[in-house]
Amino acid sequence: MDRPESSSDHRTGSLTSQELWHSTEERRTCQEKLYEFLEILSAYRLAMNTINWDQTVSGAPIAGVGFRSKGYGVLTREHYRFLVDPEFRVLLEAFSREAGTLEGDIAREWLIELKRIEKIPKDDYTEFMTFLSKSEVEWEEAKRASDFEGFKSHYRIIFDTARRFSEYIGYDQHPYDAWIEMFEPGMTVKKLDRFFGELRAEIVPLLSGIREKISENPQHYDFLSRAIPKEKQEAFSRRLLEVIGFDLNRGFLKESEHPFTNAMSIDDVRMTTHYYEQEFISSIFSVLHEGGHGIYEQNFDRILANTGLDGGASSAVHESQSRMFENAFGRSKAFWRKLYDEMQAEFSPALDDIPLDTFIEAINRVEATLIRIEADELTYSLHIMVRYELEKAIFEGALEVEDLPEAWNRLMRDYLGVEPAHHGEGVLQDVHWAAGLIGYFPSYALGNAYASQLLHFMKQEVDVERALRSLDFGDILEWLTLHVHSHGKRLKPEQLIEAATGKPFDPSYYIQDLKAKYKERYGI
Amino acid sequence: MDRPESSSDHRTGSLTSQELWHSTEERRTCQEKLYEFLEILSAYRLAMNTINWDQTVSGAPIAGVGFRSKGYGVLTREHYRFLVDPEFRVLLEAFSREAGTLEGDIAREWLIELKRIEKIPKDDYTEFMTFLSKSEVEWEEAKRASDFEGFKSHYRIIFDTARRFSEYIGYDQHPYDAWIEMFEPGMTVKKLDRFFGELRAEIVPLLSGIREKISENPQHYDFLSRAIPKEKQEAFSRRLLEVIGFDLNRGFLKESEHPFTNAMSIDDVRMTTHYYEQEFISSIFSVLHEGGHGIYEQNFDRILANTGLDGGASSAVHESQSRMFENAFGRSKAFWRKLYDEMQAEFSPALDDIPLDTFIEAINRVEATLIRIEADELTYSLHIMVRYELEKAIFEGALEVEDLPEAWNRLMRDYLGVEPAHHGEGVLQDVHWAAGLIGYFPSYALGNAYASQLLHFMKQEVDVERALRSLDFGDILEWLTLHVHSHGKRLKPEQLIEAATGKPFDPSYYIQDLKAKYKERYGI
Repeated sequence: MDRPESSSDHRTGSLTSQELWHSTEERRTCQEKLYEFLEILSAYRLAMNTINWDQTVSGAPIAGVGFRSKGYGVLTREHYRFLVDPEFRVLLEAFSREAGTLEGDIAREWLIELKRIEKIPKDDYTEFMTFLSKSEVEWEEAKRASDFEGFKSHYRIIFDTARRFSEYIGYDQHPYDAWIEMFEPGMTVKKLDRFFGELRAEIVPLLSGIREKISENPQHYDFLSRAIPKEKQEAFSRRLLEVIGFDLNRGFLKESEHPFTNAMSIDDVRMTTHYYEQEFISSIFSVLHEGGHGIYEQNFDRILANTGLDGGASSAVHESQSRMFENAFGRSKAFWRKLYDEMQAEFSPALDDIPLDTFIEAINRVEATLIRIEADELTYSLHIMVRYELEKAIFEGALEVEDLPEAWNRLMRDYLGVEPAHHGEGVLQDVHWAAGLIGYFPSYALGNAYASQLLHFMKQEVDVERALRSLDFGDILEWLTLHVHSHGKRLKPEQLIEAATGKPFDPSYYIQDLKAKYKERYGI
Repeated sequence: MDRPESSSDHRTGSLTSQELWHSTEERRTCQEKLYEFLEILSAYRLAMNTINWDQTVSGAPIAGVGFRSKGYGVLTREHYRFLVDPEFRVLLEAFSREAGTLEGDIAREWLIELKRIEKIPKDDYTEFMTFLSKSEVEWEEAKRASDFEGFKSHYRIIFDTARRFSEYIGYDQHPYDAWIEMFEPGMTVKKLDRFFGELRAEIVPLLSGIREKISENPQHYDFLSRAIPKEKQEAFSRRLLEVIGFDLNRGFLKESEHPFTNAMSIDDVRMTTHYYEQEFISSIFSVLHEGGHGIYEQNFDRILANTGLDGGASSAVHESQSRMFENAFGRSKAFWRKLYDEMQAEFSPALDDIPLDTFIEAINRVEATLIRIEADELTYSLHIMVRYELEKAIFEGALEVEDLPEAWNRLMRDYLGVEPAHHGEGVLQDVHWAAGLIGYFPSYALGNAYASQLLHFMKQEVDVERALRSLDFGDILEWLTLHVHSHGKRLKPEQLIEAATGKPFDPSYYIQDLKAKYKERYGI
């Protein structure tokens, strides 16, 4: 990692507590003040998170968006006021020079965010936040109506703002880097081009081989669209969360258009899924996915709560957990050996005539489809590549927002051989851009790769196969808690991967896993 | 009304805009600043309302109360900081001397609250608010477990704080007055003793006569406990809201332990009900009741939004609306003439054999029961009297929190002839005390009385009978909007009643209505 902040820390050198403070008393006073700021900032985050959650999940009327956004804007402004309070800055600067303490780590982490935010003019920042809270709601409507024309001015504002913010924040080589760094510290367009390049080189031929096999010998799994009443899916979803070790006393599952996880606190972790009566596996894998995120949010070291070091190390490390539960565990035969009986009973008679092996085959089939969140493990990264290339092209000025749908459809055709019939299943399908999450998509692909590497080393210490067979996630969670969850943001992604696996990040674990699994699955 | 604030306003005299400000420019600047403060205060109220709603309705885990309360406490403190900001005070003082403007009314209203709050030490205030947000959640658990012993320390803290606050705030004659005034400006223990005295003198003998009749000729309406699936009740509840003119595009209905209404804004009014499969009329009357509140919150003059003059004139005026929809409209034969067919069809076959007249008899029966929110129209005020007398006795030091259950049970026996089997249906049944709503209960009885007086005069201008028969609430809502809803808090309760009816508040309309209706119903 070569973030200027870290290297500058190293240049000035860290100090021990005794060197930095005049007295224990002085340190204690400053520590209290620091935690007071952190508590205030957490309170505003709680308020904004709750309003966001409420807006998306409670059924809050669209008509109320006006007043709600106004209030949200004020809270954002107040949050910002504390964030850039000079006293907070002084405290952070002082503690950031302290070596080996929690407060030192907290301060260094906040300074990174603070130094970035301070570069963005205040009004520009708060106006954008208010806009996003509104645009996220309006996106739902636009998606339903497949109305790109009506929504494109939102995308234009969002991408224009993103490019403007890149200039404020600064970057070494590529304006897109400024946004990638926000979600994945240390990551750059240069590194991602290489990563996606390797993936593309390996997966595109593999996929093409598989599609040939499929066209020679088409397999249909019509049972996947048998109707399962929503209530039964709900009950089984809760059972899944219980099995994988999500603590339902400290969190819960609801329904929304687009599945997501929102941690109000370590003791209140919320997730959503979406139930389709005629596509029951959609919710199953959403729940396993969000469950992986949720468990991460429940398992960091409690001492980090509300310090800013709580939550995941990065978006991609977060995604490594959700993908591990969704794919490595959730699509394995070992996991379903017992659970499939339960599901058959719960959904009876819908799956009564379907043997376990057919179900396993079905959930591991490769199929080029339009919707990212329902994509199989192999084609998923191609969906991400589409978005990565579009974002990059917009930052480079090589693509106008106006032309997004056409470019989207062309890339879908090129990589996956499918084309959306309307924008709701095309360029409007994801909430991310509407919510200002530019530069976030690459995390999904990186997360898959982190997951493979972590799992490779986990298997040297944990009998994963046996754990899955017995539906006892104890040992798995112990390993993940020790090596991943407990650290919160205290380790940077690359540090975390290296500490957990003894090796720097290496995408070949992921690529080899995919090749091995799908060559076997399709007898190539 | 003899609130010191109003009379002092009158002593100093109101000024015209030209007399008060040096220039139009000066006024405009001050006006902008005033609205800025109001917008900020509204944002904090939105945050706190949303957190409260979320906590009660979303299924948020009990485990999360700790972090949630901590955050809520910080937001309360920040809200308070703006509320007592000296600049806000100066602006309010200036505008409060302005005659005949919206800003003058806004300023006078805020000064009342501000002068009250300023008398309460800040830490005491915010600590209490934080405590309440927690205690409200814990009450749910205590009620479920009928655990008074475990919860009584909460009640002790709440009532001790209430008495301490009375001393801070000050009162003319009775420490309880300080709390009554908060919900019903102008009301006092002295006036309430007289009001409840009259009610008691008339209703207790009436009830005793009715109970004699019932014991001679018991009537059973077993069909009321026929099982109606929750989904059917939900669908019919939405239909009820539609019929009475609640705008479902600007609000919605959910479920919670205790029905309530929460207005996030004029465009986002939320209500809850509670569905009991074997007691379908419980939700019907909860929905009509909360619907009355909800319509009030949707119908004030839009110019009052977020000014502090939005919402109802007082708790009792609010209650007059909910009671009017619940009882005067919702228990009338005219209202059910068409609607009963719809309900029979929706709930079929459960009510297929029950004629309309039997249903009307059943929903107008008198029965001494334990639960206030399910009480009939006649015994309802006795439930309120129990709570009024207990609160009063605690303020007088004549009753200790320790002895509340015994006193509760004794009064229930004396007034209603029934006694709770456990505290969940006794002293723990209402959320009010746990939420710090001391002095709120009398509003419920006053609300009934206001409703009768308003309706008496509404009927001189609106053909209410015809409106109900045709399920067309247009004329009724027009009258209510003009005379009640539109004013928000701009008129004080007594002013509002007098302006709407041409007469000062007079409880005899209510008493005569009850006597006439129930003497006829029971042939006394």
